[in-house]
Parts: sequence; C-alpha cells; structure tokens
Amino acid sequence: MSIVAKTFTPRNLQLITEQCLKKRYFSLASSANQRMSEIEQKFKLPKTYEGSQPSVWVEYIQLALDHKPLNLGQGFPDYPPPKYVTDALIEVASNRNLHQYTRGFGHPRLVQALAKLYSQLIGRTINPQKEILTTLGAYEALYAAITGHVDAGDEVIIIEPFFDCYEPMVRYARGVPRFIALKPKLTEGKRLSSGDFVLDKAELEGLFNKKTKAIILNTPNNPLGKVFTLEELTFIADLCKKHNVLCISDEVYEWLVYKPYQHIRIATLPGMWERTITIGSAGKTFSVTGWKLGWAYGPANLMFNLQMIHQNSVYTGNTPIQEATAIAFEKELTRLDSSECYFNSISTELEPKREFMGKFLQETGFKPIIPEGGYFMMADWTPLKSQVDLDSETDKYADYRFTKWMTKKVGLQGIPPSAFYGEEHKKLGENFVRYCFIKEDKNLQAAADILQKWKSGKN
Amino acid sequence: MSIVAKTFTPRNLQLITEQCLKKRYFSLASSANQRMSEIEQKFKLPKTYEGSQPSVWVEYIQLALDHKPLNLGQGFPDYPPPKYVTDALIEVASNRNLHQYTRGFGHPRLVQALAKLYSQLIGRTINPQKEILTTLGAYEALYAAITGHVDAGDEVIIIEPFFDCYEPMVRYARGVPRFIALKPKLTEGKRLSSGDFVLDKAELEGLFNKKTKAIILNTPNNPLGKVFTLEELTFIADLCKKHNVLCISDEVYEWLVYKPYQHIRIATLPGMWERTITIGSAGKTFSVTGWKLGWAYGPANLMFNLQMIHQNSVYTGNTPIQEATAIAFEKELTRLDSSECYFNSISTELEPKREFMGKFLQETGFKPIIPEGGYFMMADWTPLKSQVDLDSETDKYADYRFTKWMTKKVGLQGIPPSAFYGEEHKKLGENFVRYCFIKEDKNLQAAADILQKWKSGKN
Repeated sequence: MSIVAKTFTPRNLQLITEQCLKKRYFSLASSANQRMSEIEQKFKLPKTYEGSQPSVWVEYIQLALDHKPLNLGQGFPDYPPPKYVTDALIEVASNRNLHQYTRGFGHPRLVQALAKLYSQLIGRTINPQKEILTTLGAYEALYAAITGHVDAGDEVIIIEPFFDCYEPMVRYARGVPRFIALKPKLTEGKRLSSGDFVLDKAELEGLFNKKTKAIILNTPNNPLGKVFTLEELTFIADLCKKHNVLCISDEVYEWLVYKPYQHIRIATLPGMWERTITIGSAGKTFSVTGWKLGWAYGPANLMFNLQMIHQNSVYTGNTPIQEATAIAFEKELTRLDSSECYFNSISTELEPKREFMGKFLQETGFKPIIPEGGYFMMADWTPLKSQVDLDSETDKYADYRFTKWMTKKVGLQGIPPSAFYGEEHKKLGENFVRYCFIKEDKNLQAAADILQKWKSGKN
Repeated sequence: MSIVAKTFTPRNLQLITEQCLKKRYFSLASSANQRMSEIEQKFKLPKTYEGSQPSVWVEYIQLALDHKPLNLGQGFPDYPPPKYVTDALIEVASNRNLHQYTRGFGHPRLVQALAKLYSQLIGRTINPQKEILTTLGAYEALYAAITGHVDAGDEVIIIEPFFDCYEPMVRYARGVPRFIALKPKLTEGKRLSSGDFVLDKAELEGLFNKKTKAIILNTPNNPLGKVFTLEELTFIADLCKKHNVLCISDEVYEWLVYKPYQHIRIATLPGMWERTITIGSAGKTFSVTGWKLGWAYGPANLMFNLQMIHQNSVYTGNTPIQEATAIAFEKELTRLDSSECYFNSISTELEPKREFMGKFLQETGFKPIIPEGGYFMMADWTPLKSQVDLDSETDKYADYRFTKWMTKKVGLQGIPPSAFYGEEHKKLGENFVRYCFIKEDKNLQAAADILQKWKSGKN
C-alpha cells in the first residue's frame, strides 16, 4: 500500500499511521496541514537513534494478536509460575506499608538476598550496596551496562546469534558492534546440538584491538541454547584480560541447563571478577517474566557507571515486586542443594519438553538443534521448503517469510532467527526458526499435531 | 578524609569506596594492583555522562538511613494507599495467569482505561495503541520523551525550580538546557503563595530561538507547588507554536490541586495537542509511588520516538502492576464527578495537612510558600539562621548545609531546593527547604513539636 492513500477512511488512516510508524516516514505527505508537516520535520528521532526499528517482538506479538496461532514465539511459560512465588506477591500486596518508593539501586531485602546467593556462587563476598544493582528487567540491566560503559567509537564484540537488543543498545551508545557468529562444526548424519556451534578462535582473537571496550557473552545462549564450556570461557577470558576488555555476561538462563552440562559464571575465572558485569533475571529464574525485575552484579567501580544510567533513566525499582522476589530467594536459599529447589527442579521439569519438541520437529522434517540450556530450540526448516509459499510474504529474509506464512496458514508461530544476527550475517539465520518449549504439555502436543497435519497435507 | 588512607580496615575501605563513587575518582591510587588501575582508566563513564553525580535522592535517602530523622524529605505518603488499590494488586497476584510478559508499549487493559480517561479530559479521542505509552514510572516517561526528542545541540527550556532529573536527562541527550527561574513578585507583608512565583515574559520569549527543541513544563510544579494559570499556559503555548517547539508537560500531580485552583492540561489549548507530550504517574495518582508506573500520551508521530527509546532500554512494563492499576482506573472512571472519587478526595484529604504545615512553619519562624498544588511546601529558613551551625557542614550551598545539620542535630529532614536549579541559579534555592506534607497527622504534629522544641532551645 502506498503511503499516499486516495481515500481517508478510518481504516486507511490507521494503515497509514502504522506504515509511518513502521517505516519511519514522518511526513504525512498527504496531510493538508502545513503545521503538521513542520512538526514532523523537526521532531524526527535524534541522529543517534536513526535506523531504530520496531523490534521483532513488537511485530510478532501483533502478528499473534491478529492471527491467533498456537504461539511458540515469545519466551515465557504458558502455565502458572511456582505457587509460593505468586503467594509471596499476594503477601506483599497485603502489607499496606510496602507500596512506596524503595532504595534506588535496589530494595534492601532483595540486594541482601542476591548478595547471599551470588557470594556463594561466585566464591567471594559480594557487597549488597555497591556491587549489585536491581533493574527493571534484565533488559534495563543490559541497557545500563552497555550505555554506561560504551563511549562513541568504542567497539563491542557481539556473539551471534544474540538476543536482539544488544545491537541497538550498542548503537545508541554510539559504539561499533563487531559481530562473530557461532558456526556449526561438521557433524554429518548426527542430530545437531547447540554445543556443535562454536567460535572460530582466530576470528575471535582478530576482533580484539585497542578500540575494543567490551564483549557481550550470553550463556546459556538465546536463541541457540548453547552453554559455553570452561575451555571456551577461558579463551574468551584470556582475551579480555590481555586486551583489558570488559565482559558483559548475560546469564538470565543460568538455572536452565540440562544434564550433563553445567553453567559456569565467567566472573569466577581467575582475574575476571574485576572486569565482568553479570546480569540475571527474576523473570527467567522464577518463571515470572511479567514481573520485569533483573539485576547486575560486579565490582563497585564498574557498577558505578550502571548506577548513573539507572539513576537518570528510571531512578528506582518496584517495591512490592522486589520484596516478593526477595521472599522467593530466601526460600530457595534454604534448599539450594535439594532437588526441590526451583533452581534445580525447573530444568528437570523442562527436559522432557525439550525431548518432545526435538522429536516432533524431527518427525515433521525439521532439523532441530537440541539446546544444552535455555528454553528455546532452533530448527532448520528448509527441508520443508517445498510445502511453504514463501512468495506470499514480502520480507527480505526467508525466515521472516516462513514464520509469517506458518502463523497465517498453519497456525503455529515461531520467531525468525535472522533477527538475532547483525545485518552482514543475517543469512546465517535464514534457514532457521526459533520455538519456545516452556509451554504446557497439551500445547506442545497441539503443536506436534498441527505440524503432523500440515505435513500430511490435511490443513 | 583523604582518598589515600594509611590503613585499610574494612571501614576505611568502605569510606574510600564511597568517596570514589561520590567524587568519581576512578583510580584507587593506593591500590597495589596495576591491572586494577588500567581497568579504572579504561572504564570511566562515557563522555556524555561525565559530570553525573549521585542524585540528591541517593544522598538524602542514605542520610535518613544513617540518622533516622523524622523524614519529610521524599515525596510519598507514610500511610497506606486506598485499600481498593492494594486490593486490586492482591486480586491480580492471585490470578496465576497474569505474571508473564505483556504488550511492550502498554498493557492492553491499562491503555484502554487511560485512553478512556484522558479522552474525556483532553476532549478528543485518544488512540490507546498509538497515542499512549506506559512506562516504568513517570521518570522513564520523561527519559523517553527527552532522549527520544532532544538531539545533540538542541536547546531545551527548563523552568526553575524543576524536578532534578530534567537537567541530566537533557545533558545525556547532548542537549543544552536553558534555564528560566520562577521569581517572586513583590508581596511585602503577606504570606507567600506558589502563585506569587512567575516567569518574566520577556525573559522567556528571549530563550526561544531556532535551536529550541522543547520546553519542559511541570504543573503543578514540584517543588514549588505552583499551578500554572490559563494565561500563563497560553503565553507558553503561543511561543511553542510560534517557534515550532515541543512541550513536554510533566503533570504527575494533576489530581493534587487545592481549591480554588484548577489544573489545566496544556494539550487542551488550541493547536497544542499536536506538539505536546503529557506525562502522568500511577504512583502520584493512587498514592503508590513504589509501583513505579507512569505513562505518556500525545500524537502518534511524537510518541513513536518515545516508543523507540522504551523498546531499546526497558522494552516492556510490569504485568501485574499494570493490570491492578487498570482495575483502579476502571473504578474511578465510574465516579469521576463524585467527591468519593480518589482524584477528588485526595486534595480534600491533603488540604488540612497543607494548612497545618504552613501554620507550624510560620510559627517556628520559617517563611513558608503555600502551594496551590502538589504535596510539597518550600519555606525560607533564613530567619532561623542564627540558630543553625552551618559551618559544621561542608557543602557548597547553604540549603544543603541547613538540611544536613537539621537532620543530624534536630532530627527533621527536608530536601535542599538548590538541587532543583541549574548551576547558575542555585543561589535562588539556597534560602529554602522543601518539606513534604503527605504524611500522617501524628507525624506532622511530631514535626511541629520538634521545631517548637528546637525554637525554644530545648534540644
């Protein structure tokens, strides 16, 4: 549809507005109002933010609202979180004195609990006041870490595929993202694991230089599910130390690791505490993504920069949500070694779901990459290409066309992984789709049924 | 205390760290570790953020924690919010399906309620999808509005005294704040009202030029309590239209206006909707500052910029808090014209508190400025100067010294208003202190008693 519509029905106007927003045309050229045009000319996005696009999430959440598919897109459970966690929020909401401002850099009871937990996990005493910042989601923690440390012209190494916000955040800070993709080793014949995707050591080494300010690590990785090994982390750590580079370690899936793999915190490697900011998430830890609570921890001098960004962008966090999360942590702290501990039971609970999804994707003709961690599975959809009308969609990348067609025609929604690559490497994601398996068994079964029916040509 | 301490007791180390953070010395000069020093050299704040200081809030909350005064500093009620509001959160927390991600630009039920309310108040149909963004506090709404619209070199007019985050936000966007102070008209003899503080029209007009991108309006104003009149708003609006300037209107105290004054939304003035972003707050509206929920509304083309900032800094808001706030709004929407409506009853509830504070400050020898709106009162403390040992504190501005001395020696805490002025005009705030009166009657009485005792030299 052209931006200049001939008739201005309400629906046309809505489409135009959508298109304006989407493609960043600020000039409603057909508007009769000269003043409006002046406003649009002047009130463009600041140069730093030019090129900002509505994220894949905005687009795909709308797609889901419009077509009502079975949605395996976004990463959140479609079943209730642990009852004691929501009970904690009920308890806190009932306390009428817990609804006002709390300490800006973190609610006291929560930073105490976090310090207690991570002091054990990291093997050093973490100062709850100076070495922890609680944030409005891990997303804000990433934003504060990146914009608080990356200056104009600084290079930031981003490992692909990556959680899609890293790139715009680096660009907002006027930094220069340098991408390196995890690539599959040759594993002819056998089912691919996320562990088969590795970094080329020489390529990684070649990215480090005097301009390198930071590397963003994500283990377990979203969307691939790769859990970085000690050997891989040591290689990265050695480069960080050699080139005096900060490591921003996004570990929001720290508790979602499948046997026999183990989550290793890069901050525990020799010489790394002092150059690492580690990021965690209550949403991922307690299966309450809507609570929008995250945190970052690291040495006080590095955390200062995050505090300044936090102070001047959001200032303080949510009191009842932080208190409830503190209560949840305090419970888990009493049973960390027990199989009852949610940090342990969640991966046990998810493992059969992972197996089931791997099986039904394989049976339908996909080539799934079995994840070692996280709750996403990437799968190569190209063996099914002949059954998909890719030409009915207009997006640049085939995975966008595949996932949109599947949503509209087959009724199953996934996320296009090219969204998780920098522009140069988007081709590497095109053959894949990302599905989320932290879903009720009946919904995973429904997904299997949908695909089976599709394969047999019955839909 | 010098930054280089001779002995490294834990307490000394803590003091040093505090000092490092506070004064932004990044080099722990006495550290034996060369690597640490390299890290500190490299990981300074990006240039854009240089000069960032811990805010007055961080400093004064710590002061309160250390000295446990009667705290009339921060702006939040020390008594419970309306029961139906906290009951809404209990209800939502009990619904186990309301704990996952919601729509990024605003929870559907909440943007619907906001659209319904503000459509009535603004007198035009507001599109809940495109013309409203919910944010993590009004603070984030300000951040998104400022950084989403202010480009490097753009000038932004800020009316003093101002909520202290406006200035760093403008500087983060690499904009240039241009300050203009509200100044008292000559009102010899009579008790000052916030309405006696006015803008010099010629001075304001002189600030508008080709570089002017925006003006930040705050009505009712914090800390002064001024409610801008129609005549004043019209003058500002005409300048905005003449010079094609955006108005960022911080109206978080919109419901806190005392008779006979009336809150006027500048977006309702002719030609102003298309150039105004209005900001509101659930924390201020429902007396739940700890819920950390705000919003901005305005035309879609201006809101797009805020959406992009929001999407790339925090992405989405809190689901249960937004749902609970929607429920609270839905209740009020059924009784907007009733005196039962909290939007109406809150100022009735606060008016006697305002009267009481004005009276006891006057009686103690302060010269209070009676606010027309908000829940703060500025008061001139200099008539009491002879009773204060200002030299015992080292801060640059006398109001910091006064408030610190009062906290430590008299046990009553206020906020120094020079924090609400740009560097050039801080002197204008020095003679004042800001007290908050949304406090239990018994605590206001206790404040009166503390001051009475102090005046009579008994403490």
